[in-house]
Amino acid sequence: MAFLNDNYLKLKAGYLFPEIGRRVKAFCDANPEAAKRLIRCGIGDVTEPLPPAAVAAMHQAVDELGVRETFKGYGPEQGYEWLRQAIAQNDFRDRGCDVANDEIFVSDGSKCDCGNILDILGSKNKIAISDPVYPVYVDTNVMAGHTGEANAAGAYSKLIYLPCRPGNGFMPEPPKKHVDVIYLCSPNNPTGAAASREQLEAWVKYALENKSLILFDAAYEAYIAEPGIPHSIYEIPGTRECAIEFRSCSKNGGFTGVRCAFTVVPKTLRLAAKNGELHPLHPLWLRRTTTKFNGVSYIVQRGAEALYSPEGKAQVTGLIRHYLGNAEVLRQGAKQAGLKVFGGVNAPYIWVRTPKDATSWQAFDRILNEANVVITPGSGFGSKGEGYFRISAFNSRANAEEVARRLQELKW
Amino acid sequence: MAFLNDNYLKLKAGYLFPEIGRRVKAFCDANPEAAKRLIRCGIGDVTEPLPPAAVAAMHQAVDELGVRETFKGYGPEQGYEWLRQAIAQNDFRDRGCDVANDEIFVSDGSKCDCGNILDILGSKNKIAISDPVYPVYVDTNVMAGHTGEANAAGAYSKLIYLPCRPGNGFMPEPPKKHVDVIYLCSPNNPTGAAASREQLEAWVKYALENKSLILFDAAYEAYIAEPGIPHSIYEIPGTRECAIEFRSCSKNGGFTGVRCAFTVVPKTLRLAAKNGELHPLHPLWLRRTTTKFNGVSYIVQRGAEALYSPEGKAQVTGLIRHYLGNAEVLRQGAKQAGLKVFGGVNAPYIWVRTPKDATSWQAFDRILNEANVVITPGSGFGSKGEGYFRISAFNSRANAEEVARRLQELKW
Repeated sequence: MAFLNDNYLKLKAGYLFPEIGRRVKAFCDANPEAAKRLIRCGIGDVTEPLPPAAVAAMHQAVDELGVRETFKGYGPEQGYEWLRQAIAQNDFRDRGCDVANDEIFVSDGSKCDCGNILDILGSKNKIAISDPVYPVYVDTNVMAGHTGEANAAGAYSKLIYLPCRPGNGFMPEPPKKHVDVIYLCSPNNPTGAAASREQLEAWVKYALENKSLILFDAAYEAYIAEPGIPHSIYEIPGTRECAIEFRSCSKNGGFTGVRCAFTVVPKTLRLAAKNGELHPLHPLWLRRTTTKFNGVSYIVQRGAEALYSPEGKAQVTGLIRHYLGNAEVLRQGAKQAGLKVFGGVNAPYIWVRTPKDATSWQAFDRILNEANVVITPGSGFGSKGEGYFRISAFNSRANAEEVARRLQELKW
Repeated sequence: MAFLNDNYLKLKAGYLFPEIGRRVKAFCDANPEAAKRLIRCGIGDVTEPLPPAAVAAMHQAVDELGVRETFKGYGPEQGYEWLRQAIAQNDFRDRGCDVANDEIFVSDGSKCDCGNILDILGSKNKIAISDPVYPVYVDTNVMAGHTGEANAAGAYSKLIYLPCRPGNGFMPEPPKKHVDVIYLCSPNNPTGAAASREQLEAWVKYALENKSLILFDAAYEAYIAEPGIPHSIYEIPGTRECAIEFRSCSKNGGFTGVRCAFTVVPKTLRLAAKNGELHPLHPLWLRRTTTKFNGVSYIVQRGAEALYSPEGKAQVTGLIRHYLGNAEVLRQGAKQAGLKVFGGVNAPYIWVRTPKDATSWQAFDRILNEANVVITPGSGFGSKGEGYFRISAFNSRANAEEVARRLQELKW
């Protein structure tokens, strides 16, 4: 008799976005006129067209594949050398980070990489995550059997939840007890907080002392606007011995539908086998990549490469400026509405305290019904997200301005 | 202390293709003149350009992403409805197979899917594979901890190897003992054999009686030329209760560098939890897909859709005819050289017995040195591949004809 993976049965239903969808649909069905003015600031998906440099590069790549002389079949599973070089040079070495081309693994998504990385980790690690948190970190650990069952609040036993609150700038401190693997996301989804150099230094110190592994998700790196905020964890000395970094072209180049990302695994990073012997992790990830992946589409890799050309960089800067401009409009609008606002400076997300002790879902319903705006209830990201909601800045400027206006009209 | 996955340390080095590369390089360095006439029939990668219908569709998709009004961000992780519909209709329902659109999961590769499917299976299954075999089935089970160590011949304990030989047409019979999960690949890589209806019926009967799961890899389905050979395992009654099928656009549409494939998981397929309770597998694969994957590039999905248009179908037929024509040229050439030849009728691979009890590597060296042709030694696919070699038909016609000629010049 063939058996399934019982760990999947522990998963709570993907509750947040289906429930949002259900409530939005019910509202629109009941209020067809109001539905016409609905503005969605829920999901974190880009809205603006691709940079022209990427469009041109992908057209050229498609043409190459249509001609025998320039046709490309299988590429290297870990990505073409020209793309790995462009990434390592521009995103790391130009910032003083010691990252070699062959430490870059090109992939089809950060979400995929954050999940797949567990393939090469052992089953006995103590795993720490932030609360609130990007749900993929949790769910992939549940699937891999690293947790027990969930309690009524949705928290899984065996996972160590690190609370994020205004007092720590929504970036967790290293815990007093020992953990083996830590997920850090900066700039953060959902809170929009960005880790300071001091915060990252404290984590790296902890990781080196505890021989822990930091999984650093920097998918929103391009939104860092303030000087002094590290763009890569490899800006912190010692990190090549304790951290893997995840990056993406989704939120800078607008590649959410195009699909390209990458993961950095330093060759100096070593983890323990069961017998305590240390082994480099890089060959394991290389072996996983070559065995279970066939590389990102050639067309897409050419598009990603174009983001690093002079024109591509300028166009990406324009996109980021657009979304951060929206974030500022939303921040100011929410503030002027008397709301307590976090994030939105180094990230495309605004994290807002619900007024008058309203729950996240109460705030969601008020804003949907009265302002006809869809936001994301913070409690969907974890118990410490209760009492907050997230506004996404991925929109047109006109929509962002309209949302800011409507927030001020709301009487709490 | 963070721990790695010890199972990776059991993996034998990816020995076959690096060793081929090493020997070819040594030969070319020592024989620069002969190197100029080298023809590669080793790796199974397509050589002809993309169908024009796919090229046109991908150009249009790139343009759509360059304009705000038609821009697409995240798509459904399991694939766009229009592509799932085209696949389910053309590849299955038009052949009388009962497959619904939402049983199609679009992915970036069959290799990926064959590996990832283990995520949703339990850890105690008894796994059967063919020998010789596509190495990914083996390696991904090693990584997942489903095997013990490898012996000197490279066979892993706990895996059940089913020998393929001329007597069974290189398609294994169901074993006498019980197994929980069986990998079947038809048309087969590396042997080029295609399973008959009777052979598949025997397997489905076995699977239903033993409550086993068949993982059916039909990546080379488009090469089936003989009438009566099933194109999908769902042509066999009862299969919706016991089989998952993997398909690919790599070898029909020439998408090895473009990346699109799909997996069929019937909603009626149920597997046991540890307590013996049966659960449908479809929700697990859906959950895995939505949590650990973000969908195939929109551009690529539009290209794949175009393979199902009238022009696309005609162009794919032309590509298949080209490669099967090469296969016939190579088959006849090898036969006239006095070699014993299998496969190459319903597959782009010719499986050749080495003459005079030469080992696979001895044959490799002879053919490289004397004919300046690169083939793949059969022993690289498993111990029962010893004494065989594989010739790939992925080439230009001129090269296939030249290889056929040179094989006949070889004096064994």
